[in-house]
Amino acid sequence: MPDTIPADSVGIVTPNIAVFETPLALSSKQTLEQYELIYETYGKLNAKATNAILICHALSGDHHAAGYHSMDDKKPGWWDSAIGPGKPIDTSKFFVVCLNNLGGCCGSTGPTSLNPKTNKEWGADFPIVTVTDWVESQARLADYLHINTWAAVIGGSLGGMQVLEWSIRFPDRIKNAVIIASAPKLSTQNIAFNEVARQSISRDPDFHDGHYTANNTIPVNGLGLARMLGHITYLSDDSMGKKFGRKMRHDDYQYNYGIDFEVESYLRYQGEAFTKRFDANTYRLMTKALDYFDPASATNGDLSKALSSAQCDFLLVSFTTDWRFSPARSEEIVDALVRAGKHVSYAKIDSNKGHDAFLFPIPRYMSALNGFLNRAHNILIQESN
Amino acid sequence: MPDTIPADSVGIVTPNIAVFETPLALSSKQTLEQYELIYETYGKLNAKATNAILICHALSGDHHAAGYHSMDDKKPGWWDSAIGPGKPIDTSKFFVVCLNNLGGCCGSTGPTSLNPKTNKEWGADFPIVTVTDWVESQARLADYLHINTWAAVIGGSLGGMQVLEWSIRFPDRIKNAVIIASAPKLSTQNIAFNEVARQSISRDPDFHDGHYTANNTIPVNGLGLARMLGHITYLSDDSMGKKFGRKMRHDDYQYNYGIDFEVESYLRYQGEAFTKRFDANTYRLMTKALDYFDPASATNGDLSKALSSAQCDFLLVSFTTDWRFSPARSEEIVDALVRAGKHVSYAKIDSNKGHDAFLFPIPRYMSALNGFLNRAHNILIQESN
Repeated sequence: MPDTIPADSVGIVTPNIAVFETPLALSSKQTLEQYELIYETYGKLNAKATNAILICHALSGDHHAAGYHSMDDKKPGWWDSAIGPGKPIDTSKFFVVCLNNLGGCCGSTGPTSLNPKTNKEWGADFPIVTVTDWVESQARLADYLHINTWAAVIGGSLGGMQVLEWSIRFPDRIKNAVIIASAPKLSTQNIAFNEVARQSISRDPDFHDGHYTANNTIPVNGLGLARMLGHITYLSDDSMGKKFGRKMRHDDYQYNYGIDFEVESYLRYQGEAFTKRFDANTYRLMTKALDYFDPASATNGDLSKALSSAQCDFLLVSFTTDWRFSPARSEEIVDALVRAGKHVSYAKIDSNKGHDAFLFPIPRYMSALNGFLNRAHNILIQESN
Repeated sequence: MPDTIPADSVGIVTPNIAVFETPLALSSKQTLEQYELIYETYGKLNAKATNAILICHALSGDHHAAGYHSMDDKKPGWWDSAIGPGKPIDTSKFFVVCLNNLGGCCGSTGPTSLNPKTNKEWGADFPIVTVTDWVESQARLADYLHINTWAAVIGGSLGGMQVLEWSIRFPDRIKNAVIIASAPKLSTQNIAFNEVARQSISRDPDFHDGHYTANNTIPVNGLGLARMLGHITYLSDDSMGKKFGRKMRHDDYQYNYGIDFEVESYLRYQGEAFTKRFDANTYRLMTKALDYFDPASATNGDLSKALSSAQCDFLLVSFTTDWRFSPARSEEIVDALVRAGKHVSYAKIDSNKGHDAFLFPIPRYMSALNGFLNRAHNILIQESN
């Protein structure tokens, strides 16, 4: 917990809830009659509402991107290192919005919400939502906030996919797109890992076909396993090696299937901690949203063609040791944008932190983000004069 | 099943069982009072017993490396592509021995065997055995077969670790070492994946602390998951992409957590098939043997020093897209051998098949194996004159 709020923090923040009564038609052909989105904002919206930035979260993220909910918080929001006054996503210049996506488990309508038709928790009956659905719901949140055009939409990993979708779906509502450690679609291996994670959850007898709450239980074993596996794919071989190597818990091997290596203990802890803050149905839903994302499928696999309608400027960022979404995956997007004649900047950042690097304030990365957004801010100042 | 036995096949083979009554002291400080090893042999041992080759199997391998058990067999042994008359491991020149390792589940003493003290299946009480224990038991099998010195010991992956151990532990009993797609020890990431696999198994309620047979069940869900995960690490991103891409089972996404992509179906099938042929306790044991292997730990991490006593010639082989044991891991062994002043040949083979490449008859790979073993054979001919 902070003794005092740091000067470059957005400070104490309070989440807001927006209620939407207009039915939302989903990619699945199902319809959500009503839903709520929880979101936070940092900074001030200017008079013409031209300085708003949308932050899109990744698989296990939420709306709490920066600042503290109270002085008792042990940690600030998940991207506090990048968001604040004077930080790359500068809240003295921009009005920053971050929401928990539909289907999430942190306050927006999702599997842990009540299904109004049954007055019971949705559980596994909550419809699978897609990146397209999210972007649609985010556009409605923009309307609700009287923001016609985002100065920038920014996201890492699954968040980057939402940014890409924004640039295609609402070309006149986004000025700048920042796509970090992302991919234009999952590889076969990515899908395979997701499937193992989903199977880990659904094979847990405590899963009860997704209606575990009604059975007064939680599939902690399966969800923990899914997170352990996910965690390995977020880290690089190198960073795991540097952090744990073959460090042992005891002086010698135990020969009993208990914990021999520190990394085993770490993974078990990470898995267990995750089950206390995250919902298993939401986890499955998020992996399906990842699997389903493939904007180029509408243009016979031609990503450049899919991006032809985009009007914004792009910044792509990748990290050298990211093997979940390697630099080559970002470069697919860069190449497609170049072929489509779009403005695109690209920074491949040296880091040993694997996919997780996008959450760290690596100087060259922060500097690229800062430079790109400064330029965006200068342009909007010029346009307002 | 073969209509006729191919001319370059070792033909119909019958496994043998060797019974050992001399207690074997294990690395774990436990002792196996008696044990059996199942093995097959191909080719003929020469009068001076100088032409014997030992094949060491990998995690899920067994003693049936070549030929057929009957004309009804659908497939030959797991390394039939490399072993036979005229093949790189040429049974017209060499006497080839392949055993199922101790702790296995294919006929050698292991968790599915009866514990003579209790007259019940060992299950999870079977002691964890190590690569060192295996090599010790293989040396006793050599004694039993009246083979003092192996013309070569050959193995891929975990099998390669046994070869490395042979070269260190019994330098005067091995003339040539062939270490394929292996590593001198597991990386942190390797251990992490193994731990997820073990947890998949032990968290299955049907595991019953490893005494599932006594409970008339099998932890098929957990063992299947472990295999699904393992399978991903055996294949390359590229080969999975080429084989499955994003091929779908249906015309459109199902939005129901069923099977959308062919790769999901494939993985589930692989997982399920594995549970019908492999034992969960053996799987856990094999992963521990992998985790524990670290011959340089006896020399403060100096692999070159650990290898200083080795007298054999070495052939190392790696595969470009193997990310489980990447070429860099083989090159650690090559470099250590070079520093130790040993004879070492090294072939890094282009292949998109990932770790599994070691099981395929890739021409340059087979040619390297053939050349190295031809040379070995020529030397033993010269020495016998």
